[in-house]
Amino acid sequence: RVNADRLWDTLMDMAKIGPGIAGGNNRQTLTDADAEGRRLFQAWCEAAGLSMGVDTMGNMFMTREGTDPDALPVYIGSHLDTQPTGGKYDGVLGVLAGLEVVRSLNDLGIRTKHPIVVTNWTNEEGARFAPAMLASGVFAGIHTQDYAYARKDPEGKTFGEELKRIGWVGDEEVGARKMHAYFEYHIEQGPILEAEEKQIGVVTHCQGLWWLEFTLTGREAHTGSTPMNLRVNAGLAMSRILEMVQTVAMENQPGAVGGVGQVFFSPNSRNVLPGKVVFTVDIRSPDQAKLDGMRARIEAEAPEICEALGVGCSVEAVGHFDPVTFDPTLVASVRKAAEDLGYSHMNIISGAGHDACWAAKVAPATMIMCPCVGGLSHNEAEEISREWAAAGADVLLHAVIETAGI
Amino acid sequence: RVNADRLWDTLMDMAKIGPGIAGGNNRQTLTDADAEGRRLFQAWCEAAGLSMGVDTMGNMFMTREGTDPDALPVYIGSHLDTQPTGGKYDGVLGVLAGLEVVRSLNDLGIRTKHPIVVTNWTNEEGARFAPAMLASGVFAGIHTQDYAYARKDPEGKTFGEELKRIGWVGDEEVGARKMHAYFEYHIEQGPILEAEEKQIGVVTHCQGLWWLEFTLTGREAHTGSTPMNLRVNAGLAMSRILEMVQTVAMENQPGAVGGVGQVFFSPNSRNVLPGKVVFTVDIRSPDQAKLDGMRARIEAEAPEICEALGVGCSVEAVGHFDPVTFDPTLVASVRKAAEDLGYSHMNIISGAGHDACWAAKVAPATMIMCPCVGGLSHNEAEEISREWAAAGADVLLHAVIETAGI
Ligand SMILES: NC(=O)NCCC(=O)O
Ligand SMILES: NC(=O)NCCC(=O)O
Repeated sequence: RVNADRLWDTLMDMAKIGPGIAGGNNRQTLTDADAEGRRLFQAWCEAAGLSMGVDTMGNMFMTREGTDPDALPVYIGSHLDTQPTGGKYDGVLGVLAGLEVVRSLNDLGIRTKHPIVVTNWTNEEGARFAPAMLASGVFAGIHTQDYAYARKDPEGKTFGEELKRIGWVGDEEVGARKMHAYFEYHIEQGPILEAEEKQIGVVTHCQGLWWLEFTLTGREAHTGSTPMNLRVNAGLAMSRILEMVQTVAMENQPGAVGGVGQVFFSPNSRNVLPGKVVFTVDIRSPDQAKLDGMRARIEAEAPEICEALGVGCSVEAVGHFDPVTFDPTLVASVRKAAEDLGYSHMNIISGAGHDACWAAKVAPATMIMCPCVGGLSHNEAEEISREWAAAGADVLLHAVIETAGI
Repeated sequence: RVNADRLWDTLMDMAKIGPGIAGGNNRQTLTDADAEGRRLFQAWCEAAGLSMGVDTMGNMFMTREGTDPDALPVYIGSHLDTQPTGGKYDGVLGVLAGLEVVRSLNDLGIRTKHPIVVTNWTNEEGARFAPAMLASGVFAGIHTQDYAYARKDPEGKTFGEELKRIGWVGDEEVGARKMHAYFEYHIEQGPILEAEEKQIGVVTHCQGLWWLEFTLTGREAHTGSTPMNLRVNAGLAMSRILEMVQTVAMENQPGAVGGVGQVFFSPNSRNVLPGKVVFTVDIRSPDQAKLDGMRARIEAEAPEICEALGVGCSVEAVGHFDPVTFDPTLVASVRKAAEDLGYSHMNIISGAGHDACWAAKVAPATMIMCPCVGGLSHNEAEEISREWAAAGADVLLHAVIETAGI
């Protein structure tokens, strides 16, 4: 078993970097806080005997040598970046549990046949630069590096400039590494495990996603002196699209979600009807046909809603992945580890996207989940217990040992 | 008649300060650009023989002496501040037409009995600091200066700090001045005069307003892993309130408007359901009963909409004025001036709020309007013709001469 206290203390030490305003974290990707978090993680890894490789997307690969010089490494990865008002565990748990696995192997004097590489992927959250899971996506050949470098944050700064500014452009070619297997341990970010009183989620699938960024064009006009019948009201069109997305999601129950987290009014002045409204619809389902059906319906109905108001409507897909089925052998190894350790467990479908979804494109991959209080995530109040954190790390340790061989 | 070319050139010179991004202006109140605009206006006024007084709200009073030492001044006022994406004429025309009246009187060698004071009111737009017409409101005793000084812009800077920073805190006590009469000349900002092919709007009333700032409290949560039935979706509640406001306004036709120009999602990240949504509803009507009825209905229905979604709802009135009836004698003097000058004219109700609405609380007041292309305002594409600008200034000159006496 891993050292539960050491894992917890390591999590709490990382949480000191980029503190939030309500007990959580704001350590958004490619900020100074991100750079500081990376340096701390690097120092911990080097103290545990790992050697560092960094690729041109800033992905960090911390290697523990194996006994077989020809064996491909087993990867354990997740992310250290957070949402602007994020929790202390989303992503961080997976990276630091990887470190804890290595520390435990060191304590036990266990050498594995395959090397083990603990990985921190850049910009998983997608909060600053859409899409989410950007750097693992480039690694898996989904996006080009040029595309990734050109992504802009809301202030107009590019990913490429910011990666350079914080000093984390590495020299490795992205995606050149080959993986024997990929494991990712993550908090559930949803309510199921806690409700079902299970310690471990054996993740069999991940639901697919579309991020549809709408740009609605109205006519900027005075809220007081512009008669109702002369308004070209992009804000009203946005409202109707939000309601329609809610309807579409509800009509696809169970097994679908849809909502909007980001809205920009322009010029965003109290007495100006917005000339432009930009917002992103987030729809997900583990069922490919449902996911595509929801997208098609939203993209068909939104222009009709806009047309009725004279509002211009354009849509761009700024994030996407298809539903993922994880590798059955690795899934079985996770289930067996939970079984052997005596942890209660159940199969689960990941509601959130993860770097594992892209890793699954280039290697056998799977995930392990632990519960989180009230299913709350992407919220500074995100919480887990020391015991929950440790249980998943134990399962990770056992599954990794089985896969990496002794 | 005034000098149409000089008035136009003066307008174009002022428009060079705080240029917008699409041909208009961004000269928001208490910015460096505002300070620069004030200095230019001061220089022009002093060259025309006016002497300056500035009060502790930064209101500028440029005085042309009268022949009767005991006579109260006739004021001509409006504002030089603009929306973030504002036009070149909204407010500016009224101030610079006041200067043109003085210049024309100088050219003609006319001395009036009453002094004439050309006034630039601070923060009419209310775009940076709500409410609109803030400094004329303090002048008229509607708000206290402490209240005004504490108003915050979206970045959290206060009115008081910013007024001091740009160096325009004057030494006059606000509201100490007494007025014989107050005139304000403004573009219509609506479509009526152009549609009716009238050169002059004789403004008999101004519609009343409420700005209702809603703060909706949802629960920040992951857009992917939070099931639909566990969402506390403040964004959806906002959408439903926007639709409800539209319905309320439509059911009060004719003679009412309602809409939303400003919306803030928090944390405003694509994969986070908003924990907080703040937005301001703007409702107006010239009919007091309608205005109050709309407010009551919105304030009754919004909490019901929120409650059905489990969303918290609070509302604060951040702007308000009752419908205004302008002074019949001054209104008649405007109509007579248009008549005498041979300009087509009609009675009109102002759709927008103006400093004249607060001046009307402490003095006989009225307004003159000219058309604007397509009724467009609060838009950088706001446009008027040289002839339209001059016609209203001619009317202003004649009405002021009649009121100030020779
Ligand atoms: N795990 C997680 O929150 N990932 C961000 C990408 C997503 O929105 O699912
Ligand atoms: N004239 C004008 O645009 N004033 C701003 C206050 C309002 O919103 O009516």
